[in-house]
Amino acid sequence: MDPYRTLREEAFEANLEISRRNLAIYTWGNASAYDPGKAVFAIKPSGVSYDKLTVESMVIVDLEAVVADGSFAPSSDTKTHCVLYRDFSASRGNEIRGITHTHSPYAVAWAQARFPVPVFGTTHADHGAEDIPCTEVMSEEAVSRNYELETGNLIVETFRRTGKNPVHMPMVLVAGHGPFAWGKTAAESIYHAAVLEEVCKMALLTLTVNPHAEALPEHIIRKHWERKHGPNAYYGQK
Amino acid sequence: MDPYRTLREEAFEANLEISRRNLAIYTWGNASAYDPGKAVFAIKPSGVSYDKLTVESMVIVDLEAVVADGSFAPSSDTKTHCVLYRDFSASRGNEIRGITHTHSPYAVAWAQARFPVPVFGTTHADHGAEDIPCTEVMSEEAVSRNYELETGNLIVETFRRTGKNPVHMPMVLVAGHGPFAWGKTAAESIYHAAVLEEVCKMALLTLTVNPHAEALPEHIIRKHWERKHGPNAYYGQK
Amino acid sequence: MDPYRTLREEAFEANLEISRRNLAIYTWGNASAYDPGKAVFAIKPSGVSYDKLTVESMVIVDLEAVVADGSFAPSSDTKTHCVLYRDFSASRGNEIRGITHTHSPYAVAWAQARFPVPVFGTTHADHGAEDIPCTEVMSEEAVSRNYELETGNLIVETFRRTGKNPVHMPMVLVAGHGPFAWGKTAAESIYHAAVLEEVCKMALLTLTVNPHAEALPEHIIRKHWERKHGPNAYYGQK
Amino acid sequence: MDPYRTLREEAFEANLEISRRNLAIYTWGNASAYDPGKAVFAIKPSGVSYDKLTVESMVIVDLEAVVADGSFAPSSDTKTHCVLYRDFSASRGNEIRGITHTHSPYAVAWAQARFPVPVFGTTHADHGAEDIPCTEVMSEEAVSRNYELETGNLIVETFRRTGKNPVHMPMVLVAGHGPFAWGKTAAESIYHAAVLEEVCKMALLTLTVNPHAEALPEHIIRKHWERKHGPNAYYGQK
Repeated sequence: MDPYRTLREEAFEANLEISRRNLAIYTWGNASAYDPGKAVFAIKPSGVSYDKLTVESMVIVDLEAVVADGSFAPSSDTKTHCVLYRDFSASRGNEIRGITHTHSPYAVAWAQARFPVPVFGTTHADHGAEDIPCTEVMSEEAVSRNYELETGNLIVETFRRTGKNPVHMPMVLVAGHGPFAWGKTAAESIYHAAVLEEVCKMALLTLTVNPHAEALPEHIIRKHWERKHGPNAYYGQK
Repeated sequence: MDPYRTLREEAFEANLEISRRNLAIYTWGNASAYDPGKAVFAIKPSGVSYDKLTVESMVIVDLEAVVADGSFAPSSDTKTHCVLYRDFSASRGNEIRGITHTHSPYAVAWAQARFPVPVFGTTHADHGAEDIPCTEVMSEEAVSRNYELETGNLIVETFRRTGKNPVHMPMVLVAGHGPFAWGKTAAESIYHAAVLEEVCKMALLTLTVNPHAEALPEHIIRKHWERKHGPNAYYGQK
Repeated sequence: MDPYRTLREEAFEANLEISRRNLAIYTWGNASAYDPGKAVFAIKPSGVSYDKLTVESMVIVDLEAVVADGSFAPSSDTKTHCVLYRDFSASRGNEIRGITHTHSPYAVAWAQARFPVPVFGTTHADHGAEDIPCTEVMSEEAVSRNYELETGNLIVETFRRTGKNPVHMPMVLVAGHGPFAWGKTAAESIYHAAVLEEVCKMALLTLTVNPHAEALPEHIIRKHWERKHGPNAYYGQK
Repeated sequence: MDPYRTLREEAFEANLEISRRNLAIYTWGNASAYDPGKAVFAIKPSGVSYDKLTVESMVIVDLEAVVADGSFAPSSDTKTHCVLYRDFSASRGNEIRGITHTHSPYAVAWAQARFPVPVFGTTHADHGAEDIPCTEVMSEEAVSRNYELETGNLIVETFRRTGKNPVHMPMVLVAGHGPFAWGKTAAESIYHAAVLEEVCKMALLTLTVNPHAEALPEHIIRKHWERKHGPNAYYGQK
């Protein structure tokens, strides 16, 4: 009996969603599910296409990126997941238990444009009450040190610098690369990756209609965020 | 036996169409069906995804937003529907019996750009002989008073200010938010929501080809509107 | 036994293709199939959605737009088809035996922008060795006279004015309205309608990448046209 | 028994992928599979639509474009494939064994814009560490000599002029025409054709968000290329 069965199933299901929601083609992208009790996460094997994935093929990795169980090599982005679970989750309450990385085209466009995404509307504000941040481009020194780990550090540093809380802003654009999103479960992380793509598409189309489009005023941003996430939230079922 | 069965079925079917026509992802968007005789409408439960909806889950609400029947909390946008049924329908002949709200990306783009949609062509004129209006951005005072109810008031005020008749212009963009559409039935309201998305897409593409594109002359707008909606309309079957 | 059965089947199949190829939503668009021997054509009934169409519902109309057979009212654009069959086909060799009108979004965008489509590449040149023409906007006087018939006249006049041969240029944009395409069969007319949409999409994207994009030089346009349509054509099977 | 059965199956499968991945409509595009031992390749028959293709219909052609086996006329672009197999493969180690040509809209847009595609991000760098080249427009003299053969020569000349190695840069844009891609197998060539379309889409969207977007710095391009293709590559399974 596999003690990681449930974790693997959760990661497997999230990875399939990347493909079902058209957030990446072929083998691109990866999702993971984190178990704070065991301090490991299940992640997609590297370079395997979505139609070949099985629950068993999910690789179990600890927060130092050491494989704890599994016969495949884990995603080449594994160390980025490690840094985010260590800094965004393990070191502050373990609220984040899933991470998704995709190459969805509109989010990649904003990442390649190296622009944060302004809060143009309530679709955005429903999921985050601030700009979606974009990292700096990684330095040559950091790339040569440990690229995937430094990608995680770059994200962490971006949140520190801009004073953002990853629990409240569950997505980021890595400049020149693409989007990472996270959530309370692997399923929520892929939901946030899909939201990010939709918000990036809407923002690009908004600028096409009106290159001088303005961000929503703060009182509407705040209202939409609060009605879904505030102490008196009233969206959804009790 | 459920006295609201037919109304629920109509609302259920319209909500499913939102998803089938790709006018919103996940739980976003909502549609309702209004019964002027009973002065209630059936609406989507809040935060439930389209693949989980059932006829029974539709919530019956009166025009003061009080739940008359149903075990779920109604859509968080319910009060907006109330205002529109009260002002656009109950107070002037009950012609409007369905409302649909979506987050379809091209309509959202125009709403976020805060621009009315000019009548660039006959696809638009077939469904409305004037610009598709865009509301103002809601004031801080109105947001803090009663956000969803004030969204309805903002729409009503926009129609009053621009002298538009909601029976002739069955759609609107709420600035920084997205589209609302309505019709003689819930099915017609989702049809108008789909038309609005298509017209917004065509208008954006038109501006991409020609940033100085001009609106249709009035005589063609009028002709297309009349052949479908005028006293001597000849489109469709008798 | 229905003497128009084959003609109806041909028109029915072409109309279904409009929907299958996503060239129009709901009831929009229409296709017809012409029989020069009987001097009639079969056309879509007005305002019927694609999923409700049957072979029997296709309406048989003569070149004066008089219904020769069928229990439905024909498409509101029927007189436009009449003019094109009379002028482009009956009066010059009956080569054109199918017409398709759609509201496909990229072709509509160019029609609403009121721009002819330049020959930016070989995809275009494979199907026509010149710009895809765009008509003038119809005058108020013509609209009030006989709108749909004048739409046909506007197309015919555009070809006369620009010296184009409709057998060599099987598509047109009606300014502020949308595309019409034709061919040796109804099936070829819908093929040309799909080509037009694809070429319009490519041309719009080309201008997005390079607003100063230039048309192909004449020697390449000519080569592509000739290898498919010239006396020594060598594309396809013998 | 057909001695070319395996080669035909490989070509057949790659041609079907063009249609499945929406890289061309109707009969457009073509893929081939090369056998260096027999010095022949299997290619799509000319002008046959994807839903009519069979394994048997694939045409076997030698490097002089002479049909070695098969009852159909080969693709009109066959001589372009010949030149690429001769120059890019047979004359330097036979590494390239598959070629795909499509009319996918975003790649065509860049080809029609006549711009090479800058390395805006890691999606691009994962598949090529340099700009995707765009050829010159073919001269009148070359067109009249032997168009399809000269298309191959134009591609070869572009790689020579820019010092590119076709094994490292497996794709090209033919100015005013569209994309060609290749790979170690026919399947890899269609993979590269799909990557090219996705990269061209992302690059166009990037310029829409930021018309002054900059290419990735060389140290990140190099890193992404090396982790997938360098001597110490660590992407994928061993």
